Amino acid sequence: MTDLAAVKTALKTQAVETPSWAYGNSGTRFKVFAQQGVPRSAKEKLDDAAQVHAVTGIAPTVALHIPWDKVDDYADLAGHAEKRGLRLGTVNSNTFQDDAYRLGSVCHPDPAVRRKAVGHLLDCVDIMDATGSRDLKLWFADGTNYPGQDDIRARQDRLAEGLAEVYARLGEGQRMLLEYKLFEPAFYTTDVPDWGTAYAHCLKLGPKAQVVVDTGHHAPGTNIEFIVAMLLREERLGGFDFNSRFYADDDLMVGAADPFQLFRIMCEVVRGGGLTSEVAFMLDQCHNIEAKIPAIIRSVMNVQEATAKALLVDREALAAAQTAGDVLGANAVLMDAYDTDVRPLLREVRDEMGLDPDPLAAYRRSGWAERIVAERVGGQQAGWGA
Amino acid sequence: MTDLAAVKTALKTQAVETPSWAYGNSGTRFKVFAQQGVPRSAKEKLDDAAQVHAVTGIAPTVALHIPWDKVDDYADLAGHAEKRGLRLGTVNSNTFQDDAYRLGSVCHPDPAVRRKAVGHLLDCVDIMDATGSRDLKLWFADGTNYPGQDDIRARQDRLAEGLAEVYARLGEGQRMLLEYKLFEPAFYTTDVPDWGTAYAHCLKLGPKAQVVVDTGHHAPGTNIEFIVAMLLREERLGGFDFNSRFYADDDLMVGAADPFQLFRIMCEVVRGGGLTSEVAFMLDQCHNIEAKIPAIIRSVMNVQEATAKALLVDREALAAAQTAGDVLGANAVLMDAYDTDVRPLLREVRDEMGLDPDPLAAYRRSGWAERIVAERVGGQQAGWGA
Amino acid sequence: MTDLAAVKTALKTQAVETPSWAYGNSGTRFKVFAQQGVPRSAKEKLDDAAQVHAVTGIAPTVALHIPWDKVDDYADLAGHAEKRGLRLGTVNSNTFQDDAYRLGSVCHPDPAVRRKAVGHLLDCVDIMDATGSRDLKLWFADGTNYPGQDDIRARQDRLAEGLAEVYARLGEGQRMLLEYKLFEPAFYTTDVPDWGTAYAHCLKLGPKAQVVVDTGHHAPGTNIEFIVAMLLREERLGGFDFNSRFYADDDLMVGAADPFQLFRIMCEVVRGGGLTSEVAFMLDQCHNIEAKIPAIIRSVMNVQEATAKALLVDREALAAAQTAGDVLGANAVLMDAYDTDVRPLLREVRDEMGLDPDPLAAYRRSGWAERIVAERVGGQQAGWGA
Amino acid sequence: MTDLAAVKTALKTQAVETPSWAYGNSGTRFKVFAQQGVPRSAKEKLDDAAQVHAVTGIAPTVALHIPWDKVDDYADLAGHAEKRGLRLGTVNSNTFQDDAYRLGSVCHPDPAVRRKAVGHLLDCVDIMDATGSRDLKLWFADGTNYPGQDDIRARQDRLAEGLAEVYARLGEGQRMLLEYKLFEPAFYTTDVPDWGTAYAHCLKLGPKAQVVVDTGHHAPGTNIEFIVAMLLREERLGGFDFNSRFYADDDLMVGAADPFQLFRIMCEVVRGGGLTSEVAFMLDQCHNIEAKIPAIIRSVMNVQEATAKALLVDREALAAAQTAGDVLGANAVLMDAYDTDVRPLLREVRDEMGLDPDPLAAYRRSGWAERIVAERVGGQQAGWGA
Repeated sequence: MTDLAAVKTALKTQAVETPSWAYGNSGTRFKVFAQQGVPRSAKEKLDDAAQVHAVTGIAPTVALHIPWDKVDDYADLAGHAEKRGLRLGTVNSNTFQDDAYRLGSVCHPDPAVRRKAVGHLLDCVDIMDATGSRDLKLWFADGTNYPGQDDIRARQDRLAEGLAEVYARLGEGQRMLLEYKLFEPAFYTTDVPDWGTAYAHCLKLGPKAQVVVDTGHHAPGTNIEFIVAMLLREERLGGFDFNSRFYADDDLMVGAADPFQLFRIMCEVVRGGGLTSEVAFMLDQCHNIEAKIPAIIRSVMNVQEATAKALLVDREALAAAQTAGDVLGANAVLMDAYDTDVRPLLREVRDEMGLDPDPLAAYRRSGWAERIVAERVGGQQAGWGA
Repeated sequence: MTDLAAVKTALKTQAVETPSWAYGNSGTRFKVFAQQGVPRSAKEKLDDAAQVHAVTGIAPTVALHIPWDKVDDYADLAGHAEKRGLRLGTVNSNTFQDDAYRLGSVCHPDPAVRRKAVGHLLDCVDIMDATGSRDLKLWFADGTNYPGQDDIRARQDRLAEGLAEVYARLGEGQRMLLEYKLFEPAFYTTDVPDWGTAYAHCLKLGPKAQVVVDTGHHAPGTNIEFIVAMLLREERLGGFDFNSRFYADDDLMVGAADPFQLFRIMCEVVRGGGLTSEVAFMLDQCHNIEAKIPAIIRSVMNVQEATAKALLVDREALAAAQTAGDVLGANAVLMDAYDTDVRPLLREVRDEMGLDPDPLAAYRRSGWAERIVAERVGGQQAGWGA
Repeated sequence: MTDLAAVKTALKTQAVETPSWAYGNSGTRFKVFAQQGVPRSAKEKLDDAAQVHAVTGIAPTVALHIPWDKVDDYADLAGHAEKRGLRLGTVNSNTFQDDAYRLGSVCHPDPAVRRKAVGHLLDCVDIMDATGSRDLKLWFADGTNYPGQDDIRARQDRLAEGLAEVYARLGEGQRMLLEYKLFEPAFYTTDVPDWGTAYAHCLKLGPKAQVVVDTGHHAPGTNIEFIVAMLLREERLGGFDFNSRFYADDDLMVGAADPFQLFRIMCEVVRGGGLTSEVAFMLDQCHNIEAKIPAIIRSVMNVQEATAKALLVDREALAAAQTAGDVLGANAVLMDAYDTDVRPLLREVRDEMGLDPDPLAAYRRSGWAERIVAERVGGQQAGWGA
Repeated sequence: MTDLAAVKTALKTQAVETPSWAYGNSGTRFKVFAQQGVPRSAKEKLDDAAQVHAVTGIAPTVALHIPWDKVDDYADLAGHAEKRGLRLGTVNSNTFQDDAYRLGSVCHPDPAVRRKAVGHLLDCVDIMDATGSRDLKLWFADGTNYPGQDDIRARQDRLAEGLAEVYARLGEGQRMLLEYKLFEPAFYTTDVPDWGTAYAHCLKLGPKAQVVVDTGHHAPGTNIEFIVAMLLREERLGGFDFNSRFYADDDLMVGAADPFQLFRIMCEVVRGGGLTSEVAFMLDQCHNIEAKIPAIIRSVMNVQEATAKALLVDREALAAAQTAGDVLGANAVLMDAYDTDVRPLLREVRDEMGLDPDPLAAYRRSGWAERIVAERVGGQQAGWGA
C-alpha cells in the first residue's frame, strides 16, 4: 500500500531547475526561428523563470550558462532572483564557442588552448562563489571528426589533467557535475561519450565529482534507467539534464517522446533514494518552434507526473512478485502505477500548495505572454550565439 | 577478368558534382568556425570549385543553392563558370530558412505558406532555365517535433499537391530529384523520411521525378546499397548526395567513416548500370573544422577510389560463385577488389588525363590556399545564413 | 467532444487475432525454456486461444503457421475451432526451416529451391481454401550474410516472379499480406527489409497484395505511425503483427516497451479509417520466460487500451489546434487522451459484453492454467522446431 | 618511417585464439542448418582447429566452452591438443542453458539458483587448473525482459557477490575476463550491458579482473576503438571477442562488415601497447551458412591484415600532424596505412614462417574438408545445444 500523504509531501518538496538558456532563442544548424518576447538579458530570463515557478511551485532555481549569462555583478543578479522568489542554481561552463576551440578545449592538442579552457572553468567557480551555486556542470564538446585526427588516449590524459585542476579549486560544499554525450558537435570521437568515461574520471577526482545523465545523450537502445540505478548504487549520480528525443540529442520537452521511459527513470530514482539525496533535477531543452515558457511549464509538470507515478508504485507488491519470479505479476504492479492518471492527484497537491490546480491555465490568465511581447521590443534577444 | 582499359575509360568519364555551399562556412547548432579565405560570392565559390576540377579532372559541375547563390544574372554566373572550365549543375531549393517556415513549407498547415514555398520552387525552375541546369533537387525540412502537432496524412496530401504543381512546370529534359531524410531539423516526424515515401511520390508524379539518396540520411543499420539496387531496378535513382556519417547526418567527407560501405554502394551502381545512366553523383558535405578545398578534393578522390574498386570486381567470378551458392567464395571475390590498392591505377589515369597524379599535392603547390587568404579580406563570408 | 457510445461500440467490435505459435514454446538461439502445460497439437493451441477469447471477448480468430500447424484435415480443425467459439484466421507460411533454405527460399539462386518454396506457398493457399482463411501472410527469411554472397537485384527479380505466381493463385476474397523485416535471420541484406520494398512489390501485384507492419521489424528511430499513415493513405495496409521491442525483433508483449508508441500507431489507424477497414490486427510475440496464456491476454488488453485512448482523442480540438499552428495545444490534446486511465471504461465495456471486467482475474479463477499442467503430460510440446 | 622488420616480427608473434564452438553447428532462433563433417567431440574440434593453425601459423590456442566441451579427463584433452600443435586456451562458462536459469544465473532472485551458477563458475576454475588455462571468460545472459520484472540494483548486488566468490578462487596467474553485451537473450535490461558496468565490477574485484570487448556487443553508433583506448589506459583490457555485425550481435566473420573499424580498433591496440601486453585476441563467431573451417581461417587472416595495416601507420607523421592540428593531414596518414594492400606483405611473412603464402589454398589442397565429411558419419554433431 502506498502512503498517499508521503507521496504528496515528496511531490511538494521536489525541485526542478530550469535553464536560463531555454528562455532564449534556440534552433538547429539550419535555422533559429526567433520568437517574440524573448528575454534580452539574464534578468529577463529570471523574470520568465519566475513565472514558471509561480504556477508550478517546484521550479525555484535557475541554471546559468557562462558566458551567455555573464554579468558584471553576480550578487546583483542573485538579488534579482531573490526578489522574484528564485535562487541561482548550477553554473554551466562553455568551452565550445570561442574560435580557439575548433579542435577542442581541455583536450585540445595545444596547451595554450587547454590553459584558456581551464581558465574559463576556474572563472566559473569564482562565479559560483559569488552566486552561492553548489554545482559546476561541465559539458565538453571536445572530440574529433575524423579517424586519426587526434590521439584518443592523449586527449584523455589532457582531460584528466584539466579536471584535476578545476576539482582542486572547488570550495566546501561545491561539486563538479560531469556530463557525457554520445556525439555532436564532434562526429567521430567524443572525449566523454558515455557514463563509463565520466564515471572513471569522477572516481579518480574524488567524491565531489559526480556524473550527470542527460536523457538525450545516449546511443539508440541504451537503457537509461539502468545507468541511473548503477550510478546511484555507486553514489555517483550528480543529477539529470532532462529532455526527450526520438533520434539524437533532439532536446524536446522531457516526457514528450517516451513518457514510459521517464517513468522508469523516476522509478529507479525513487528506488535508489535519489529523490531525497543530492541528485539535481534539471531541464536542458530547446523550444525551437513552440512557445518557450508554457513548454517549460509543461516539462516541469511532465517530470512531476512521472515522479508521482513512480511514487505510486506498490513497492511491497513489486518486491513480492520479483522475489517470486512472477514476471507478469511484477510487470503488472509497475504498469498499474504507470497507467494511473495522476493529474487529479497533482491538482490536489497544487491546491494544497496554494497554487492553481492548472499551471498552464494560470500562466495563460496571467497575461505574461502578451506583456513580454509588448514590452520586450528592441535590444538583442538572448540565444546561443552560435 | 576485368578489362583494365574499360575501367580507365569509366574512371575518366565519371563526374562528381561539388556543392557551392561546401566552399562556404558551415557548422553545428553550437558553433560555426569561420575559416580564412572563404568565398564571399557565388563567383568566388566557382573559383574554388575550379581548383577542385583542375586537379581531379572529374568535378566539372557545381550545384547551386537558392537563395544562398542568388544572383541577378544567372547567364553571367554561367559565363563565369564556363571561363573557369565549369558548368552550373543542380539547383537546390531552400524552404527552411524563411521565418514563415517554422512549421514547414509545402506541408505547412497554412495555405499561404505553402503558396510561398511552391512559388520559390517554381522560381528555382526559372533559374534552371537560365542556367541550363538539368536537375531541381528538393530537400524539405518539413516535419513536426511533437506528437499531435500536425496531421501526418494531411501533410502528405499537401506535399503531393505542391510537388505536382512544380512537376508540371518542368521543361523538356528537366528533372525533379526528391531527397529523403530520417530526421533533422524535425525531430518527431519528417514528411519525406525514407526512400519508400520519396519513391511513392515520384511514382505518381511521373518519370521526371527521381529519388536522391543522401548517404547520411538513414536510420542506423539501414543497408544503403540495397536501396540503391532497388531504385536502379525501379529506374528511380536520380542521384546521390555523398557524404559520410558515424551517427546522424554528420556530413563528413564521403568515404571517411565507412569506405567499405561506399565501395558496396558503388558496386551496386556499377551492377545496375548507374555509372553510365543519368545518375547524378553529387557531394553534400560540411567541412566544419578542416580546410574546405582540400577536403573536397579528397572527397572526390574517395568516390573515385571506391568506383575504381567497384569496377575491378571480377563480375564473372562473382556470378559463378553466387550461382554455386559459394558464400565464402563470392565474398572473397568482392573483398579481393576492395583490398586492392587502387591508388597506383588512379595515378595512371590522372597521368593519362594530363593531370598531376597527386591532386592534393598539385593543389598545395598551386598556392591557391594562400592566395585566397590574402585576397579575400573583408566582405561577408558565404555560409548557410542560419 | 468524443461520442462515448461510439467509442464503446468500436471497442466491442475490435478483433485481435492471436497466433497459434505463441501458445507453444519459443526462445532465443541460446535456449528455449520449455513451459509446463504447453499444447502438443494445433487443437490444443486452439483450446488455449479459446481461453483468451473467453475472457477478452475480442480475440475470435487464430492464425495458423504451416507446417507447425499442419494437420490432415483442416475442416476438422476448423470445426474444433468453431466448437471453441473461434475461427481459423491468417495462414502463415514457413520457408525458412527446411534444410534447402540455407541460402534463401523464393530468392534462392537455385531455381529448384525456389520451385519448392513457391510450391509451399501454393499449398498454403490450398489450406486457406480449406479453412476459409482470408489472408496469406508471407514473411521471408531470405537474405544474405556477407557482401557479395548473392546478387541483390537478381534476388528481387526472383522474389517478384515467385510472388506473382502465388498472387495469381489467390481466390476471390483472398489476400496476400507481405511482411518486411530489417534483419534476422539474415545479417547483411534482407530481401524485404522495409515498407518501401514490400509496397513496391504489392503495387505491381495488384490490390489483393497488402503490406503487413510488424512493430518489431524496423531500424532504430523509425517512426512506425508515419508508415501506418502512409500505407493507409496508399490503401496498402493489410494488417499488423503486434509485439514490442527495446532493441531488435525482441517479440515482447505489445505495449510493454513503449505504450505511447502503440497509442500513436492506433491514433493513425483511427485517423486513417483503419479500425473499420480490412486492416488485420494480429499478435506475433514470443513468451519466452513468462506464462503464455496470461501474457497473450495482457497483450490483447494492451491493444485494447491503446485503441480506447486513440478513440478518446478529441479530433475536433486536435484539428483546430493543428490548423492554428498551436504546437503545444495540439500536443496537449493528444496527451490528454493518452494520460487518461481507460481501464474503468474498458471494465464497463466488458461488463456490457457480459464478460468479467478483469480478464486476467477471470482466467486465473478458471483453473485452466492448473488443468493444462496436469493434463498435458507426455507427447511433444509445440514449438518452433528450429 | 615504419620499421618493416619490426612489423614482420610483430605479425609473426601475434596469436589469435579460435573458439571450439565455432567448429560446431550454430544458427539463429529460426533454424540451425547443420553442416556435413562437423565435429562430434571436443577432440574433433581440436583437430579442426589444428588445421587453422597449420595454415595460418598464428592460431595456437583454442578456447573451451563448458559444458559444451566437458570431458572426463582434461589432461587427456590437453595432451590431444599438444599432439596437434595446439594449447587449450580460455575457459568459457555457460550459465544460460540450464532450465534453472530462466530468470538469470548469478543475478537470479533465488539464492539457490545463484549458488548453482557460482558453483559452475568455480568448477570452471577447477578445469582451468587442469588445462593450464590462464583466463576464465564470463559472459552472463542475465537480465530481464519486462520493466519491473526484477530489481535492477539488487541484481547488481548479487552479481558483485557472485563475482567476488569466483575471483577469490582464482589461482596465481589466472584471470577473470568479464564480458559485457547490450542485449540478447535479455530484451529489457542486461546485467552487464556496457563496458562501464564491467569496468566498475572489475575495479572492485582487483587486478586479475579484466574487461572483454566483444566487437558485436554494442549499441548502434558506439565507438569501439574509444573503449579500447580507455580500457588500455585504465589497464583493464583483458581481451577481445572478435566478430562482426551489421545490426545486432550478428557474429559474422571479423572484418566482414566493417574492415575499417577493425583497423581502427587495432590501431588503438598498437597505440596502447596492447599487442605486446596480456590482451587476448579471441574469435567468437557463428558460421551459420558458410563452411566453418575456411571461415575461421579467413577471420584469422582478417585480424592479421588489420593488424598489419595498424602497424604500418607512420606514427611519427601521425603525431606531427595531430600536434599541428592538421585534421586532413592526420587523417591522411591513417588512411594511407589503411589503403595499403598488405596481402603481399603477409604472403612474405608466411613464407618466412615456412607457411604457404595462401592459407585458404593450402587448406583446400589439404583435403581435410573432404576427409571430415567422409569420416565423421554418425554420432551427435557438436552445436550449442540450445
